[in-house]
Amino acid sequence: MPQPVLVVGSIGLDTIETEKETVKDVLGGSAIYFAAAASMFAPVRVVSVVGEDFPEEGRSGLARRNVDLAGLEVVPGGKTFRWAGRYSADMNERETLLTELNVLGDFEPRLPGEYKATPYVFLANGPTATQHAVLDQLETKAYVAADTMNLWINTERDELMRLLSRTDLLILNDEEARMISRRTALWDAAREITKLGPTTVALKKGEHGSYLVGRGGPCAVPSFPLKSLVDPTGAGDSFAGAFMGYLAREESTEPPTLRAALAVASVVASFTCESFGPKRLFEVTMDEVNSRLEVLRELVRF
Amino acid sequence: MPQPVLVVGSIGLDTIETEKETVKDVLGGSAIYFAAAASMFAPVRVVSVVGEDFPEEGRSGLARRNVDLAGLEVVPGGKTFRWAGRYSADMNERETLLTELNVLGDFEPRLPGEYKATPYVFLANGPTATQHAVLDQLETKAYVAADTMNLWINTERDELMRLLSRTDLLILNDEEARMISRRTALWDAAREITKLGPTTVALKKGEHGSYLVGRGGPCAVPSFPLKSLVDPTGAGDSFAGAFMGYLAREESTEPPTLRAALAVASVVASFTCESFGPKRLFEVTMDEVNSRLEVLRELVRF
Repeated sequence: MPQPVLVVGSIGLDTIETEKETVKDVLGGSAIYFAAAASMFAPVRVVSVVGEDFPEEGRSGLARRNVDLAGLEVVPGGKTFRWAGRYSADMNERETLLTELNVLGDFEPRLPGEYKATPYVFLANGPTATQHAVLDQLETKAYVAADTMNLWINTERDELMRLLSRTDLLILNDEEARMISRRTALWDAAREITKLGPTTVALKKGEHGSYLVGRGGPCAVPSFPLKSLVDPTGAGDSFAGAFMGYLAREESTEPPTLRAALAVASVVASFTCESFGPKRLFEVTMDEVNSRLEVLRELVRF
Repeated sequence: MPQPVLVVGSIGLDTIETEKETVKDVLGGSAIYFAAAASMFAPVRVVSVVGEDFPEEGRSGLARRNVDLAGLEVVPGGKTFRWAGRYSADMNERETLLTELNVLGDFEPRLPGEYKATPYVFLANGPTATQHAVLDQLETKAYVAADTMNLWINTERDELMRLLSRTDLLILNDEEARMISRRTALWDAAREITKLGPTTVALKKGEHGSYLVGRGGPCAVPSFPLKSLVDPTGAGDSFAGAFMGYLAREESTEPPTLRAALAVASVVASFTCESFGPKRLFEVTMDEVNSRLEVLRELVRF
């Protein structure tokens, strides 16, 4: 029976600009993308915070998908987190135009009783102290995955190092891997990070695919050859969601499961890039996932 | 019996700066790296030009490796091409510090009689007119591969488009693929280029591996997980050399051969990165190549 997965992260409303189109106030935040992806495989528990202005459709969309929202705090009179960003023409870089933390600014994650025994836990990108506060509330041993970003690597290095020692799986991108490890070559950088605590490092490289290093690795999965890249927002969090959801469904963190999870995560992230916001992600079927997995396996017959 | 491979490109002396070390006047140029790699698989014919100052050891190193230098012009009193460059700390970018064309500035490739019937031809990066001049001298149908660079894409677009229509295989990097195709997503950019003439496009992505699109594709090969990256100079040309040498050895341009060639090319390029200049490349054995191929195939078991 699939085990539950806990995610602690942000929920917000995003305004996203690409060369072709701009969309306003679409459902966003790490916890949304993670939950949408993970819930394809296992029941998901969300700990996050929104304001009274959070649209009902966001909540109902998640509830339909096996996502428990008992840990979603609604701040009376509060305003939901807003983010706006603009992608470069080649979609490989993005500029943050606006970050309005609102209720997320005072977010102190509180795990409902049942959540404290969740066997698979994902700490989405956020202040390192908040990530520690989640782990401090766990009452049973969990498989812990975490994400982070350049800001925390630069400003909270010591606390982050302590977090790594409490983490089983670190999921991050090229730049973050280089910053944490202070190594230049990516395979090398990821290997270095496995010495800092995480037994496994999953490196997300966008259209260059992904690498797994440490337990389960080395493993390399190419990116799915998308016909068009509409909006990569949330690709990383849906990658993490599919990865953890798959482990929870299989009730395993053995090396072959970790490798399969990397491929599943890559495929699920590819769907995220095909629409603005999590729209496509909410619609995707397991048949579609399996058919793209076959394409990936075909790609690497050399 | 392996078929011969012809390369037309530069031979020079390189000065290379990395964060850790600087080396002066090492053997370099596209034809050197190509020939060193291709000659592991098939006899190689070189058309290039050097000055009287070209060191004898460069010539003898190639001659020992099944490389025919009948097409190597030595300009009396001339000075050999010099290039100097500096790599960024992460080795992903390089700045050209010096380009002294010397005898390469007036290079007009002349194919010795026998060379005009070579079945596998590689046009290394160079002025597009020079590349056309080589094709004009061919007397039998050949499998033609070409490389190019941002300079020619910007300044000689029409001539380059005409070259593409005469090319079977285009070997290039991410940036070049985007510039030629005017598409942003890499898989898409490569597919677009197959509409311009080449039946196959091989995309070199450095530590992100390589993609093959068109005939033989889609195929993805990860980069070999190198312990240390000493100097990536020549990696692209040795990639092309191994790719074409492998086809020539197999006497085939069928899809499965193209896919195997992509993997072999990635492995051979990985050796190039392990020393300054082509030193490591000249020493590498077929056993070492096969053992790294096994590692790559293991990497993609997901």
